[in-house]
Amino acid sequence: MTRTRFHEGLDLLKDRLLRMAGMAEQSIVRAVNAYRERDRSQSELVFAGEAEINNAERDIDELALDLLAMQQPMAVDLRFILAVIKINADLERVGDQAVNIAERAEALLNVPAVDLPIDIPLMAATAGTMIRQALEAFVLGDADLAERVLTMDDTVDRMNHDIAVTMIELIKKSPEFTEQAVDAMIIARNLERVGDHATNIAEDVIFWVRGADVRHHLGRP
Amino acid sequence: MTRTRFHEGLDLLKDRLLRMAGMAEQSIVRAVNAYRERDRSQSELVFAGEAEINNAERDIDELALDLLAMQQPMAVDLRFILAVIKINADLERVGDQAVNIAERAEALLNVPAVDLPIDIPLMAATAGTMIRQALEAFVLGDADLAERVLTMDDTVDRMNHDIAVTMIELIKKSPEFTEQAVDAMIIARNLERVGDHATNIAEDVIFWVRGADVRHHLGRP
Repeated sequence: MTRTRFHEGLDLLKDRLLRMAGMAEQSIVRAVNAYRERDRSQSELVFAGEAEINNAERDIDELALDLLAMQQPMAVDLRFILAVIKINADLERVGDQAVNIAERAEALLNVPAVDLPIDIPLMAATAGTMIRQALEAFVLGDADLAERVLTMDDTVDRMNHDIAVTMIELIKKSPEFTEQAVDAMIIARNLERVGDHATNIAEDVIFWVRGADVRHHLGRP
Repeated sequence: MTRTRFHEGLDLLKDRLLRMAGMAEQSIVRAVNAYRERDRSQSELVFAGEAEINNAERDIDELALDLLAMQQPMAVDLRFILAVIKINADLERVGDQAVNIAERAEALLNVPAVDLPIDIPLMAATAGTMIRQALEAFVLGDADLAERVLTMDDTVDRMNHDIAVTMIELIKKSPEFTEQAVDAMIIARNLERVGDHATNIAEDVIFWVRGADVRHHLGRP
Protein backbone atom coordinates (compact mmCIF):
# COMPACT_ATOMS: atom_id res chain seq x y z
CA MET A 1 0.00 0.00 0.00
CA THR A 2 1.67 3.23 -1.09
CA ARG A 3 1.77 6.51 0.77
CA THR A 4 0.04 8.11 -2.24
CA ARG A 5 -2.82 5.64 -2.00
CA PHE A 6 -3.08 6.45 1.71
CA HIS A 7 -3.29 10.16 1.00
CA GLU A 8 -5.93 9.58 -1.64
CA GLY A 9 -7.85 7.80 1.09
CA LEU A 10 -7.51 10.80 3.40
CA ASP A 11 -8.84 13.07 0.65
CA LEU A 12 -11.78 10.74 0.10
CA LEU A 13 -12.44 10.76 3.84
CA LYS A 14 -12.50 14.55 3.88
CA ASP A 15 -14.83 14.69 0.85
CA ARG A 16 -17.25 12.26 2.44
CA LEU A 17 -17.26 14.20 5.69
CA LEU A 18 -18.04 17.42 3.84
CA ARG A 19 -20.91 15.71 2.03
CA MET A 20 -22.15 14.44 5.40
CA ALA A 21 -21.98 18.00 6.78
CA GLY A 22 -24.02 19.24 3.83
CA MET A 23 -26.69 16.61 4.51
CA ALA A 24 -26.86 17.45 8.22
CA GLU A 25 -27.12 21.17 7.56
CA GLN A 26 -29.80 20.67 4.92
CA SER A 27 -31.82 18.64 7.43
CA ILE A 28 -31.78 21.51 9.90
CA VAL A 29 -32.89 23.98 7.21
CA ARG A 30 -35.72 21.67 6.17
CA ALA A 31 -36.84 21.06 9.76
CA VAL A 32 -36.99 24.77 10.52
CA ASN A 33 -38.85 25.39 7.25
CA ALA A 34 -41.32 22.68 8.27
CA TYR A 35 -41.85 24.56 11.53
CA ARG A 36 -42.07 28.03 10.04
CA GLU A 37 -44.22 27.16 7.03
CA ARG A 38 -46.23 24.39 8.70
CA ASP A 39 -45.14 22.25 5.76
CA ARG A 40 -45.41 18.51 6.37
CA SER A 41 -43.52 17.69 3.17
CA GLN A 42 -40.40 19.33 4.61
CA SER A 43 -40.51 17.30 7.83
CA GLU A 44 -41.07 14.13 5.82
CA LEU A 45 -37.86 14.89 3.91
CA VAL A 46 -36.05 15.18 7.24
CA PHE A 47 -37.36 11.80 8.40
CA ALA A 48 -36.41 10.22 5.06
CA GLY A 49 -32.93 11.75 5.23
CA GLU A 50 -32.16 10.30 8.66
CA ALA A 51 -31.31 6.82 7.36
CA GLU A 52 -29.13 8.35 4.66
CA ILE A 53 -27.18 10.33 7.27
CA ASN A 54 -26.79 7.24 9.46
CA ASN A 55 -25.45 5.27 6.49
CA ALA A 56 -23.04 8.05 5.63
CA GLU A 57 -21.78 8.08 9.22
CA ARG A 58 -21.12 4.33 9.14
CA ASP A 59 -19.35 4.52 5.78
CA ILE A 60 -17.06 7.28 7.04
CA ASP A 61 -16.20 5.24 10.15
CA GLU A 62 -15.42 2.21 8.02
CA LEU A 63 -13.22 4.23 5.69
CA ALA A 64 -11.40 5.69 8.71
CA LEU A 65 -10.78 2.16 9.98
CA ASP A 66 -9.54 1.07 6.56
CA LEU A 67 -7.06 3.93 6.57
CA LEU A 68 -5.87 3.19 10.08
CA ALA A 69 -5.35 -0.45 9.12
CA MET A 70 -3.65 0.38 5.83
CA GLN A 71 -0.27 1.47 7.06
CA GLN A 72 1.42 2.99 10.07
CA PRO A 73 -0.05 6.50 9.96
CA MET A 74 2.08 9.41 11.09
CA ALA A 75 0.98 11.34 14.18
CA VAL A 76 -0.48 14.19 12.13
CA ASP A 77 -2.55 11.77 10.04
CA LEU A 78 -3.71 9.90 13.14
CA ARG A 79 -4.99 13.12 14.65
CA PHE A 80 -6.69 14.01 11.39
CA ILE A 81 -8.45 10.64 11.24
CA LEU A 82 -9.46 10.87 14.90
CA ALA A 83 -10.86 14.37 14.29
CA VAL A 84 -12.88 13.05 11.33
CA ILE A 85 -14.32 10.23 13.47
CA LYS A 86 -15.41 12.69 16.12
CA ILE A 87 -16.76 15.31 13.71
CA ASN A 88 -18.64 12.52 11.95
CA ALA A 89 -20.41 11.56 15.19
CA ASP A 90 -21.34 15.19 15.84
CA LEU A 91 -22.78 15.64 12.37
CA GLU A 92 -24.92 12.54 12.80
CA ARG A 93 -26.33 14.11 15.96
CA VAL A 94 -27.02 17.36 14.17
CA GLY A 95 -29.19 15.18 11.94
CA ASP A 96 -30.89 13.81 15.07
CA GLN A 97 -31.66 17.36 16.21
CA ALA A 98 -33.23 18.04 12.82
CA VAL A 99 -35.45 14.99 13.36
CA ASN A 100 -36.44 16.29 16.80
CA ILE A 101 -37.35 19.68 15.33
CA ALA A 102 -39.31 18.08 12.48
CA GLU A 103 -41.25 15.99 15.03
CA ARG A 104 -42.23 19.17 16.91
CA ALA A 105 -43.20 20.79 13.60
CA GLU A 106 -45.51 17.85 12.83
CA ALA A 107 -47.01 17.86 16.32
CA LEU A 108 -47.76 21.58 15.98
CA LEU A 109 -49.93 20.90 12.93
CA ASN A 110 -52.53 19.63 15.43
CA VAL A 111 -52.85 22.98 17.20
CA PRO A 112 -53.62 26.44 15.77
CA ALA A 113 -50.79 28.58 14.44
CA VAL A 114 -49.72 31.33 16.85
CA ASP A 115 -47.47 34.26 16.11
CA LEU A 116 -44.88 34.05 18.89
CA PRO A 117 -42.62 37.02 19.76
CA ILE A 118 -39.42 35.03 19.10
CA ASP A 119 -37.19 34.43 16.09
CA ILE A 120 -36.51 30.71 15.63
CA PRO A 121 -35.29 31.14 12.00
CA LEU A 122 -32.65 33.65 13.16
CA MET A 123 -31.45 31.21 15.81
CA ALA A 124 -31.38 28.41 13.22
CA ALA A 125 -29.39 30.59 10.83
CA THR A 126 -26.85 31.35 13.56
CA ALA A 127 -26.46 27.69 14.52
CA GLY A 128 -26.19 26.79 10.81
CA THR A 129 -23.45 29.37 10.34
CA MET A 130 -21.57 27.81 13.26
CA ILE A 131 -21.70 24.38 11.60
CA ARG A 132 -20.56 25.80 8.25
CA GLN A 133 -17.71 27.80 9.77
CA ALA A 134 -16.57 24.83 11.86
CA LEU A 135 -16.38 22.73 8.69
CA GLU A 136 -14.62 25.57 6.87
CA ALA A 137 -12.08 25.68 9.70
CA PHE A 138 -11.66 21.94 9.20
CA VAL A 139 -11.12 22.24 5.45
CA LEU A 140 -8.63 25.09 5.87
CA GLY A 141 -7.00 23.60 8.98
CA ASP A 142 -7.62 27.01 10.51
CA ALA A 143 -7.63 26.88 14.33
CA ASP A 144 -8.29 30.64 14.59
CA LEU A 145 -11.47 30.34 12.59
CA ALA A 146 -12.45 27.38 14.78
CA GLU A 147 -11.99 29.58 17.85
CA ARG A 148 -14.41 32.13 16.43
CA VAL A 149 -17.02 29.38 16.28
CA LEU A 150 -16.57 28.85 20.01
CA THR A 151 -17.45 32.48 20.72
CA MET A 152 -20.59 32.25 18.55
CA ASP A 153 -21.87 29.54 20.85
CA ASP A 154 -22.49 32.16 23.54
CA THR A 155 -24.85 33.97 21.15
CA VAL A 156 -26.84 30.81 20.49
CA ASP A 157 -26.98 29.98 24.20
CA ARG A 158 -28.29 33.48 24.93
CA MET A 159 -30.94 33.18 22.20
CA ASN A 160 -32.08 29.91 23.74
CA HIS A 161 -32.24 31.47 27.19
CA ASP A 162 -34.18 34.49 25.94
CA ILE A 163 -36.67 32.33 24.07
CA ALA A 164 -37.24 30.22 27.20
CA VAL A 165 -37.87 33.32 29.34
CA THR A 166 -40.22 34.82 26.75
CA MET A 167 -42.17 31.59 26.35
CA ILE A 168 -42.57 31.08 30.10
CA GLU A 169 -43.97 34.61 30.41
CA LEU A 170 -46.31 33.93 27.52
CA ILE A 171 -47.56 30.68 29.05
CA LYS A 172 -48.36 32.43 32.30
CA LYS A 173 -50.42 35.05 30.49
CA SER A 174 -51.94 32.74 27.86
CA PRO A 175 -51.93 29.13 29.07
CA GLU A 176 -54.09 28.21 26.07
CA PHE A 177 -50.90 28.51 23.98
CA THR A 178 -48.86 26.18 26.20
CA GLU A 179 -48.26 23.57 23.46
CA GLN A 180 -47.07 26.13 20.96
CA ALA A 181 -44.82 27.85 23.49
CA VAL A 182 -43.37 24.61 24.87
CA ASP A 183 -42.63 23.29 21.38
CA ALA A 184 -40.93 26.58 20.48
CA MET A 185 -38.77 26.18 23.61
CA ILE A 186 -37.94 22.60 22.66
CA ILE A 187 -36.98 23.65 19.13
CA ALA A 188 -34.80 26.43 20.56
CA ARG A 189 -33.08 23.87 22.81
CA ASN A 190 -32.53 21.59 19.82
CA LEU A 191 -30.90 24.47 17.95
CA GLU A 192 -28.78 25.21 20.99
CA ARG A 193 -27.63 21.57 20.80
CA VAL A 194 -26.71 22.14 17.14
CA GLY A 195 -24.53 25.00 18.35
CA ASP A 196 -22.97 22.62 20.89
CA HIS A 197 -22.16 20.15 18.13
CA ALA A 198 -20.58 22.93 16.07
CA THR A 199 -18.54 23.79 19.18
CA ASN A 200 -17.44 20.16 19.50
CA ILE A 201 -16.43 20.15 15.83
CA ALA A 202 -14.47 23.38 16.26
CA GLU A 203 -12.69 21.90 19.29
CA ASP A 204 -11.82 18.81 17.27
CA VAL A 205 -10.35 21.02 14.55
CA ILE A 206 -8.23 22.82 17.15
CA PHE A 207 -7.15 19.46 18.60
CA TRP A 208 -6.12 18.30 15.15
CA VAL A 209 -4.36 21.47 13.99
CA ARG A 210 -2.64 22.54 17.21
CA GLY A 211 -1.93 19.06 18.55
CA ALA A 212 -0.26 17.85 15.39
CA ASP A 213 3.24 18.54 16.69
CA VAL A 214 2.77 17.52 20.29
CA ARG A 215 4.58 14.38 21.35
CA HIS A 216 2.97 11.84 23.62
CA HIS A 217 4.34 9.01 25.66
CA LEU A 218 2.54 5.93 26.80
CA GLY A 219 2.42 5.49 30.55
CA ARG A 220 2.63 9.14 31.53
CA PRO A 221 0.74 9.90 34.75
CA MET B 1 7.45 -1.77 21.12
CA THR B 2 6.24 -5.23 22.00
CA ARG B 3 2.83 -6.72 21.42
CA THR B 4 2.60 -7.27 25.22
CA ARG B 5 3.24 -3.59 25.84
CA PHE B 6 0.51 -2.78 23.34
CA HIS B 7 -1.97 -5.04 25.11
CA GLU B 8 -1.09 -3.49 28.46
CA GLY B 9 -1.96 -0.20 26.83
CA LEU B 10 -5.34 -1.55 25.72
CA ASP B 11 -6.04 -2.70 29.29
CA LEU B 12 -5.10 0.71 30.63
CA LEU B 13 -7.40 2.30 28.06
CA LYS B 14 -10.28 0.11 29.19
CA ASP B 15 -9.62 0.89 32.87
CA ARG B 16 -9.58 4.60 32.22
CA LEU B 17 -12.80 4.42 30.25
CA LEU B 18 -14.51 2.58 33.10
CA ARG B 19 -13.33 5.19 35.56
CA MET B 20 -14.66 7.87 33.21
CA ALA B 21 -18.02 6.04 33.10
CA GLY B 22 -18.11 5.98 36.91
CA MET B 23 -17.50 9.72 37.04
CA ALA B 24 -20.22 10.45 34.49
CA GLU B 25 -22.75 8.26 36.24
CA GLN B 26 -21.93 9.77 39.62
CA SER B 27 -22.53 13.24 38.16
CA ILE B 28 -26.02 12.24 37.05
CA VAL B 29 -26.81 10.81 40.50
CA ARG B 30 -25.58 13.99 42.18
CA ALA B 31 -27.50 16.25 39.79
CA VAL B 32 -30.75 14.40 40.38
CA ASN B 33 -30.12 14.46 44.14
CA ALA B 34 -29.57 18.21 43.88
CA TYR B 35 -32.96 18.48 42.18
CA ARG B 36 -34.83 16.15 44.51
CA GLU B 37 -33.35 17.38 47.77
CA ARG B 38 -32.93 21.03 46.74
CA ASP B 39 -29.31 20.60 47.81
CA ARG B 40 -26.95 23.18 46.36
CA SER B 41 -23.88 21.31 47.60
CA GLN B 42 -24.72 18.43 45.24
CA SER B 43 -25.00 20.65 42.18
CA GLU B 44 -21.73 22.38 43.12
CA LEU B 45 -20.06 18.94 43.09
CA VAL B 46 -21.42 18.39 39.58
CA PHE B 47 -20.01 21.72 38.38
CA ALA B 48 -16.64 20.95 40.01
CA GLY B 49 -16.58 17.50 38.43
CA GLU B 50 -17.09 18.79 34.90
CA ALA B 51 -13.45 19.83 34.40
CA GLU B 52 -12.31 16.49 35.79
CA ILE B 53 -14.48 14.63 33.28
CA ASN B 54 -13.22 16.82 30.43
CA ASN B 55 -9.63 16.09 31.43
CA ALA B 56 -10.33 12.37 31.64
CA GLU B 57 -11.83 12.49 28.14
CA ARG B 58 -8.75 14.18 26.73
CA ASP B 59 -6.38 11.74 28.46
CA ILE B 60 -8.28 8.77 27.04
CA ASP B 61 -8.13 10.24 23.53
CA GLU B 62 -4.41 10.83 23.86
CA LEU B 63 -3.82 7.29 25.10
CA ALA B 64 -5.88 5.96 22.18
CA LEU B 65 -3.72 7.97 19.78
CA ASP B 66 -0.55 6.68 21.46
CA LEU B 67 -1.76 3.12 20.95
CA LEU B 68 -2.68 3.72 17.33
CA ALA B 69 0.75 5.21 16.72
CA MET B 70 2.58 2.48 18.62
CA GLN B 71 2.37 -0.33 16.11
CA GLN B 72 0.20 -1.61 13.30
CA PRO B 73 -2.91 -2.63 15.24
CA MET B 74 -4.90 -5.61 14.05
CA ALA B 75 -8.45 -5.01 12.79
CA VAL B 76 -10.02 -6.22 16.04
CA ASP B 77 -7.84 -3.86 18.08
CA LEU B 78 -8.57 -0.96 15.74
CA ARG B 79 -12.29 -1.47 16.21
CA PHE B 80 -11.82 -1.68 19.96
CA ILE B 81 -9.87 1.58 20.04
CA LEU B 82 -12.41 3.28 17.79
CA ALA B 83 -15.22 2.08 20.07
CA VAL B 84 -13.38 3.50 23.10
CA ILE B 85 -12.97 6.87 21.37
CA LYS B 86 -16.68 7.03 20.62
CA ILE B 87 -17.82 5.77 24.03
CA ASN B 88 -15.49 8.32 25.60
CA ALA B 89 -17.18 11.16 23.73
CA ASP B 90 -20.62 9.92 24.81
CA LEU B 91 -19.59 9.70 28.45
CA GLU B 92 -18.31 13.26 28.36
CA ARG B 93 -21.74 14.32 27.12
CA VAL B 94 -23.45 12.40 29.88
CA GLY B 95 -21.42 14.65 32.15
CA ASP B 96 -22.73 17.67 30.22
CA GLN B 97 -26.30 16.48 30.80
CA ALA B 98 -25.56 16.25 34.52
CA VAL B 99 -24.40 19.87 34.41
CA ASN B 100 -27.62 20.87 32.64
CA ILE B 101 -29.69 19.11 35.30
CA ALA B 102 -27.68 20.67 38.12
CA GLU B 103 -28.22 24.11 36.56
CA ARG B 104 -31.99 23.54 36.56
CA ALA B 105 -31.78 22.33 40.17
CA GLU B 106 -30.01 25.55 41.15
CA ALA B 107 -32.50 27.73 39.24
CA LEU B 108 -35.37 25.99 41.03
CA LEU B 109 -34.00 27.10 44.40
CA ASN B 110 -35.38 30.55 43.47
CA VAL B 111 -38.99 29.34 43.27
CA PRO B 112 -41.09 27.46 45.83
CA ALA B 113 -40.90 23.66 45.97
CA VAL B 114 -43.88 21.96 44.31
CA ASP B 115 -44.82 18.31 44.54
CA LEU B 116 -45.22 17.32 40.87
CA PRO B 117 -47.08 14.14 39.84
CA ILE B 118 -44.02 12.72 38.03
CA ASP B 119 -41.09 10.49 39.01
CA ILE B 120 -37.81 12.05 37.89
CA PRO B 121 -35.68 9.80 40.18
CA LEU B 122 -37.21 6.68 38.59
CA MET B 123 -36.38 8.01 35.14
CA ALA B 124 -32.84 8.85 36.29
CA ALA B 125 -32.42 5.36 37.73
CA THR B 126 -33.53 3.82 34.42
CA ALA B 127 -31.16 5.98 32.37
CA GLY B 128 -28.36 5.20 34.87
CA THR B 129 -29.02 1.48 34.50
CA MET B 130 -28.73 1.86 30.72
CA ILE B 131 -25.31 3.49 31.08
CA ARG B 132 -24.12 0.82 33.51
CA GLN B 133 -25.38 -2.05 31.35
CA ALA B 134 -23.88 -0.54 28.20
CA LEU B 135 -20.50 -0.40 29.96
CA GLU B 136 -20.97 -3.93 31.28
CA ALA B 137 -21.64 -5.05 27.70
CA PHE B 138 -18.42 -3.30 26.74
CA VAL B 139 -16.38 -4.99 29.49
CA LEU B 140 -17.82 -8.42 28.64
CA GLY B 141 -17.78 -7.85 24.87
CA ASP B 142 -21.42 -8.94 25.03
CA ALA B 143 -23.41 -7.73 22.00
CA ASP B 144 -26.61 -9.37 23.26
CA LEU B 145 -26.50 -7.40 26.50
CA ALA B 146 -25.84 -4.28 24.42
CA GLU B 147 -28.98 -5.00 22.42
CA ARG B 148 -31.04 -5.12 25.59
CA VAL B 149 -29.86 -1.58 26.34
CA LEU B 150 -31.33 -0.50 23.00
CA THR B 151 -34.78 -1.78 24.01
CA MET B 152 -34.59 0.07 27.35
CA ASP B 153 -34.28 3.31 25.44
CA ASP B 154 -37.95 3.04 24.45
CA THR B 155 -38.89 3.02 28.15
CA VAL B 156 -36.91 6.18 28.81
CA ASP B 157 -38.36 7.89 25.74
CA ARG B 158 -41.88 7.02 26.91
CA MET B 159 -41.15 8.37 30.41
CA ASN B 160 -39.97 11.61 28.87
CA HIS B 161 -43.07 11.86 26.70
CA ASP B 162 -45.40 11.14 29.64
CA ILE B 163 -43.68 13.72 31.83
CA ALA B 164 -44.02 16.33 29.06
CA VAL B 165 -47.74 15.60 28.64
CA THR B 166 -48.34 15.71 32.41
CA MET B 167 -46.43 18.97 32.83
CA ILE B 168 -48.24 20.69 29.96
CA GLU B 169 -51.57 19.75 31.53
CA LEU B 170 -50.37 21.04 34.88
CA ILE B 171 -49.22 24.35 33.39
CA LYS B 172 -52.63 24.89 31.79
CA LYS B 173 -54.36 24.35 35.13
CA SER B 174 -51.78 26.08 37.32
CA PRO B 175 -49.73 28.56 35.28
CA GLU B 176 -48.22 29.82 38.54
CA PHE B 177 -46.10 26.63 38.55
CA THR B 178 -44.79 27.13 35.00
CA GLU B 179 -41.12 27.42 36.04
CA GLN B 180 -41.24 24.26 38.11
CA ALA B 181 -43.06 22.31 35.41
CA VAL B 182 -40.85 23.55 32.58
CA ASP B 183 -37.69 22.74 34.52
CA ALA B 184 -39.00 19.25 35.27
CA MET B 185 -39.60 18.80 31.52
CA ILE B 186 -36.10 20.01 30.74
CA ILE B 187 -34.60 17.62 33.30
CA ALA B 188 -36.63 14.76 31.81
CA ARG B 189 -35.31 15.66 28.35
CA ASN B 190 -31.76 15.70 29.72
CA LEU B 191 -32.29 12.23 31.14
CA GLU B 192 -33.71 11.10 27.82
CA ARG B 193 -30.43 12.34 26.26
CA VAL B 194 -28.52 10.22 28.80
CA GLY B 195 -30.52 7.25 27.51
CA ASP B 196 -29.54 8.24 23.96
CA HIS B 197 -25.88 8.28 24.95
CA ALA B 198 -26.25 4.83 26.53
CA THR B 199 -27.81 3.73 23.24
CA ASN B 200 -24.86 5.14 21.31
CA ILE B 201 -22.48 3.29 23.63
CA ALA B 202 -24.40 0.03 23.18
CA GLU B 203 -24.27 0.49 19.39
CA ASP B 204 -20.52 1.06 19.58
CA VAL B 205 -20.15 -2.16 21.58
CA ILE B 206 -22.12 -4.04 18.91
CA PHE B 207 -20.00 -2.44 16.18
CA TRP B 208 -16.86 -3.54 17.97
CA VAL B 209 -17.94 -7.09 18.88
CA ARG B 210 -19.85 -8.04 15.73
CA GLY B 211 -17.73 -6.13 13.25
CA ALA B 212 -14.47 -7.58 14.43
CA ASP B 213 -14.40 -10.21 11.70
CA VAL B 214 -15.80 -8.16 8.87
CA ARG B 215 -13.36 -7.32 6.10
CA HIS B 216 -13.34 -3.94 4.44
CA HIS B 217 -11.84 -2.65 1.27
CA LEU B 218 -10.79 0.85 0.47
CA GLY B 219 -12.53 2.40 -2.49
CA ARG B 220 -15.72 0.36 -2.39
CA PRO B 221 -18.75 2.29 -3.65
